[in-house]
Amino acid sequence: MSEELSVVGRRLPRPDAALKATGAAQFTADIRLPGMLVGKVLRSPYPHARIVRIDTSAAEKLPGVAAVLTRDDVPEKSFTVFTFDLFTPWPFRPELKDQHVLSEKARFIGDPVAAVAAVDEATAETALALIKVDYEPIKPLISVSEATKEGSPRIHDHAERNAADRSIYAFPVGNVEKAMQEADHIVEQTFSTTRQRHGQLEPTTCIAHFGSDGRLTVWSACQTMHAAKRKIAELFDLPPGMVRWITPHIGGNFGQKLSLTAEPICIALAKKTGRPVKLQYSREEDFIATESRQPFVMTGKMGVRKDGTIAALHARGVLDAGAYFTQSRASATVGLGKFFGLYRCAHMAGEAEIVYTNTPVCGGMRGYGDAEMMFVLEQLVDMAAEKLGMDPVDFRLQNIRRAGEPSDPPYILIEHSALDKCIKRGAQMIGWREKRVLPKQGVVRRGIGMACNTHVSGAQSGLLEFSTAFVKLNADGSATVTVSPCEMGQGILGVLAQIAAEELGLRIENVNMVTGDTDVTGFDVGSHASRSTYVTGGAVVQAARQVKGQLLEGAAKALGVAADTLAVRDGRVYVRDAPEKGISVAEVTRNVTYNFKGENLNIAGKAANLPQKSPPFQAAFAEVEVDTETGQVKVLKVLVVADIGRAINPMTVEGQFQGGIMQGIGFALLEDFIFDPASGLVITDNFDGYRLPTVGDVPDIEVALVEEPVASGPFGAKGLGELSIIGIAPAIANAIYNAIGVRLTELPMTPERVLNALSGKGKG
Amino acid sequence: MSEELSVVGRRLPRPDAALKATGAAQFTADIRLPGMLVGKVLRSPYPHARIVRIDTSAAEKLPGVAAVLTRDDVPEKSFTVFTFDLFTPWPFRPELKDQHVLSEKARFIGDPVAAVAAVDEATAETALALIKVDYEPIKPLISVSEATKEGSPRIHDHAERNAADRSIYAFPVGNVEKAMQEADHIVEQTFSTTRQRHGQLEPTTCIAHFGSDGRLTVWSACQTMHAAKRKIAELFDLPPGMVRWITPHIGGNFGQKLSLTAEPICIALAKKTGRPVKLQYSREEDFIATESRQPFVMTGKMGVRKDGTIAALHARGVLDAGAYFTQSRASATVGLGKFFGLYRCAHMAGEAEIVYTNTPVCGGMRGYGDAEMMFVLEQLVDMAAEKLGMDPVDFRLQNIRRAGEPSDPPYILIEHSALDKCIKRGAQMIGWREKRVLPKQGVVRRGIGMACNTHVSGAQSGLLEFSTAFVKLNADGSATVTVSPCEMGQGILGVLAQIAAEELGLRIENVNMVTGDTDVTGFDVGSHASRSTYVTGGAVVQAARQVKGQLLEGAAKALGVAADTLAVRDGRVYVRDAPEKGISVAEVTRNVTYNFKGENLNIAGKAANLPQKSPPFQAAFAEVEVDTETGQVKVLKVLVVADIGRAINPMTVEGQFQGGIMQGIGFALLEDFIFDPASGLVITDNFDGYRLPTVGDVPDIEVALVEEPVASGPFGAKGLGELSIIGIAPAIANAIYNAIGVRLTELPMTPERVLNALSGKGKG
Repeated sequence: MSEELSVVGRRLPRPDAALKATGAAQFTADIRLPGMLVGKVLRSPYPHARIVRIDTSAAEKLPGVAAVLTRDDVPEKSFTVFTFDLFTPWPFRPELKDQHVLSEKARFIGDPVAAVAAVDEATAETALALIKVDYEPIKPLISVSEATKEGSPRIHDHAERNAADRSIYAFPVGNVEKAMQEADHIVEQTFSTTRQRHGQLEPTTCIAHFGSDGRLTVWSACQTMHAAKRKIAELFDLPPGMVRWITPHIGGNFGQKLSLTAEPICIALAKKTGRPVKLQYSREEDFIATESRQPFVMTGKMGVRKDGTIAALHARGVLDAGAYFTQSRASATVGLGKFFGLYRCAHMAGEAEIVYTNTPVCGGMRGYGDAEMMFVLEQLVDMAAEKLGMDPVDFRLQNIRRAGEPSDPPYILIEHSALDKCIKRGAQMIGWREKRVLPKQGVVRRGIGMACNTHVSGAQSGLLEFSTAFVKLNADGSATVTVSPCEMGQGILGVLAQIAAEELGLRIENVNMVTGDTDVTGFDVGSHASRSTYVTGGAVVQAARQVKGQLLEGAAKALGVAADTLAVRDGRVYVRDAPEKGISVAEVTRNVTYNFKGENLNIAGKAANLPQKSPPFQAAFAEVEVDTETGQVKVLKVLVVADIGRAINPMTVEGQFQGGIMQGIGFALLEDFIFDPASGLVITDNFDGYRLPTVGDVPDIEVALVEEPVASGPFGAKGLGELSIIGIAPAIANAIYNAIGVRLTELPMTPERVLNALSGKGKG
Repeated sequence: MSEELSVVGRRLPRPDAALKATGAAQFTADIRLPGMLVGKVLRSPYPHARIVRIDTSAAEKLPGVAAVLTRDDVPEKSFTVFTFDLFTPWPFRPELKDQHVLSEKARFIGDPVAAVAAVDEATAETALALIKVDYEPIKPLISVSEATKEGSPRIHDHAERNAADRSIYAFPVGNVEKAMQEADHIVEQTFSTTRQRHGQLEPTTCIAHFGSDGRLTVWSACQTMHAAKRKIAELFDLPPGMVRWITPHIGGNFGQKLSLTAEPICIALAKKTGRPVKLQYSREEDFIATESRQPFVMTGKMGVRKDGTIAALHARGVLDAGAYFTQSRASATVGLGKFFGLYRCAHMAGEAEIVYTNTPVCGGMRGYGDAEMMFVLEQLVDMAAEKLGMDPVDFRLQNIRRAGEPSDPPYILIEHSALDKCIKRGAQMIGWREKRVLPKQGVVRRGIGMACNTHVSGAQSGLLEFSTAFVKLNADGSATVTVSPCEMGQGILGVLAQIAAEELGLRIENVNMVTGDTDVTGFDVGSHASRSTYVTGGAVVQAARQVKGQLLEGAAKALGVAADTLAVRDGRVYVRDAPEKGISVAEVTRNVTYNFKGENLNIAGKAANLPQKSPPFQAAFAEVEVDTETGQVKVLKVLVVADIGRAINPMTVEGQFQGGIMQGIGFALLEDFIFDPASGLVITDNFDGYRLPTVGDVPDIEVALVEEPVASGPFGAKGLGELSIIGIAPAIANAIYNAIGVRLTELPMTPERVLNALSGKGKG
């Protein structure tokens, strides 16, 4: 009998697949509690206005209205909806707690001003219409340039010239100025990225209920339920332990629920009414009242030497925070860190400024900071290679950082990198050398481009990392694994079950997962970054190893051999050198539990995990066709070759890559908010206007892995959730340049921008 | 700052009180699943019949019917609904697995023959009426005497003369026959007890659902969910781990749900339809189709010597099992064990026979075996004392067993007994010596009586004992305790929370309890006997102690002192000799969790507990008024003085005693099934006919405790759930004898029986 892996590495269907395919999975919206009210939020129709008076009397008199909520009913204290502020080693500056449950001043069209809870949706809508709010409009500042103009009104009192945070620096090294002067070539370009939407299927929904025992239960799709629980307890002055957070099945998050969304208002309504309240956003509310990706405008500069090395690297730019601060600092920090982490360079500096505008709040989306900054870096790299007359593949192979070097200076070191192999294999698979030099002519021209990127396994640098796992072996020989990551479509529960089954020697169907409830699970920093497989998976391995030790001791007793002669596989413990001698796990656990000798055991293990953050790598290749008459870009093929350590479930891995690639294509070519420039009214507030890629946009996608397991990950796995989206837009931009010889620097790369670039009109 | 107990011993409201008072607690019947069907059971109208043919065609054609279930759709294998068969050291004899999901032969009026699942209750009822069953009636055997008569038909093929089990022996000691011959006085009497109902408020309800992933979830009020889960997996040939059992709030059980009830049929309907099915019994079905207390007819015999010692003790009798075996052996064994465990005696033997009849199944109810056998023993004791001319109090004080002696020979030894103090204090409190000898005259006569009893802490002798607890400390300083006992109105979750809070040094509001789900909780033999406070409480103490150790280490680091100099109370860790120096638990847990030094901990503990089974004790006193013209017995006062070790929550303890005393009064005076003697049709199948005691029957109740903590229990606590019901009926019987000079030997002691006894007609 072999001791090779028996569960890890298999292409297993996800345990939630059947539940979702049949509609059996329960999402927050599916939950109905007796006596539950419907909540609705009154939102400011002004982008910027003082709120002079709110008259709720007519709404309160409407039959069926249980409560009308105004500033008088909600906590006075300010807070931030961002849940990570609890996890940073530095204290958040108090002024960046710049939000209130209901806003004391309208700062964007959609800012919550009041709310109602009523017996049904129609009554709630009618009640909203009966609330009279006197606004005193202030000049709206929709763009960063308007907001930072001398003499513009302040959106927040604390922010002079609306600079929320002036000075977010990457950790500088060397002397950039001098190194730039000494470089043989310099490339410099300003790039801008967009306010991408997560486009998750499930609209924001929350249920809150204070039980008769005074305990608050919240159901919502939050990705960081333990932090959310704590934040809510602090905000509402509840004793610790009086908040329970439940995350049902989640219809996609992609970072949207790293911040609280509907919860504070929903909880305030539940508190005022004493009844359960469900607050579900319409798709339009979801678009304007939850966070989107922050737009970056960033100037990158790279100096290179004739020998093909990078002399200096610099970035400076501005992020649009929208109306409130939330995750802007985190996004800027991550972005600058990755900008300096991919290639070897001795002289680096970067700086970002964050500016408030009267627009919906920007926050976190998949691969944040990194997706934006790779659009900058990976085009600079191609530009520099061109100056040097080098093939971009060769330039990258020469400069990429290797094991032991930082991938996010100065925090995260590269444990192991197969990025060079990924680049080489990808170039070979796609026919890089041949296609690169094909003649470019005719109306429709083909091009090929590539981009590299890394990201992180575990939480981002500077953030607390922490996962726990409990594993128990049941008397019937099955195991239960209790962990915190939520199942939001990424397939994490199946992956963790495979890890547990492998370590325990059980069949996959005998491992059950428990999650989604702060009462039951151990503390965990939540499902974010690319961390659950890597960090929680590691905790599962450790806890399962404790369990296996106890199991083998029981089996050793039953078989009359030493525990260290035993192995376990497929639910059977056997003597390694005499595999025919064995006993089923079910028999051992039954014997251990159901014996009458006073030897009963509770076979269980617990572990906390805090590994080093081993970065994964990706080389992305794109082939495009550009219509020089219409400006239309068609992506023909995307190939990614990735180093993610070991793939626990290759099918789930491919799913993550496919989804990320499509989000990357949307980011590259299609997606952005369109505002009315005068008022900041969001015009693209639903899927009819906002251009998500659809099935017609799916190119030929190929995913290949260079599987080189790392010591720090469970069975060698690294994180991969965000990796895939990051390199797509720059690979496509580089392919467009290859096709038509002009560089697109603004996202999305629409036909109009392509035509402008071709005619030399616009910035590209 | 004192290190006295701060949470244990306090009269705290139960955590479920507000939920139940406000109707917020969710019982199984409150759960509604999408697409859920309603199940209904077709029951035999014959007490004894062969089932020749079942025609379901008309029912199947009825619109809205999803499935009609017959024997062809359910597992062929036989089983027993009793869940404890998994916990006994001896294997149950195969023929005592005498049940099927749907019966292959009707053995009582109500035996399940077929079932339907339909869109609503009306459709299901109509469908039942459309099922045609051809029965071939067999002579019904309603009484034990009919069943055991030569030539009676067999109810089960394996049971000759319908003897389900001929030979349940107590472990005999000495030579009873010889000792009886040498005794100075012998008393002997036959007593009979009744088929008492639990009278729980919540009618039997089950929901079953096979998820799209093939996993079965069962919601029901089972007291032994881990065993039930295993039994169901075996019965339905499901892989281990593919069954999840959830117990919502429970509206009283009292032993009724030690056996499966509606679950097997409900699950079979869910399996056939592929949809969730709710099967809720009407009150009438609950009466006939779930188990009641077994009727005992038992002849007790006691020989005593002039010196007041007991020379010999003998018992022999028969139990009516009803149509199926289930818990009859357990009940007989417990009863005989307790019969020989209360008083010192060198020569003892006992034997019970179990007989099938064509009546509803008898099984387990609170204090089973013991409540029946104390009705025998404690009257024999009074009869013997009278022969000796001794006061029954003195006779008991002389003969009760003390620490180190067996309380359930030969298994359970007495760890510590304050029964002597209980007897003495009770006699003094109630004015025993004075009231005992008051002249008895007039139409209405007063009397006073007493009875002693013990029971068990933990599972009964010979049964597996096993509880687990997981305790985790959350990053906000609150704790979560995961245990298996279900909250069925006994207040166990509050008691376990107090135990955890005390050991952890937290305030009670910062301890949350998790239970009621086999996925989440560790293996446990369930909520039965008098075990959860004692056994699970002990596991909680052990797990909490591990947690406290980790907590103090964290605090010691923060305070710069050694961990062994620290104590914790009210959520604050402090230096024992300098209490002003301290740190809050919340700060420690936050620091330990939210630190950035790679030292993060998962503060958690797990424990299994298997303590000795330290018996509790009770002395019960009753004062009655007997109307010699009407035969009416009125209970004026019941006083119990009990030794339960330490009372964790005296208010909950009193509640348990008050409830048990009222069930004891019902058992003594009111409750029994009334059958049509020819058919076995249950006439008293609802609360209109079955005479539960009501508020008008509540006497002056006084509960006093002799609190002497024992080493084996959590903070010195012993079990107490069943203690209270046991001695009530014999105390009342002895009081009636004291009042009117005649001995009542049949339960319930109705006016008719009192008058018969007075006139010397009946047996008493």
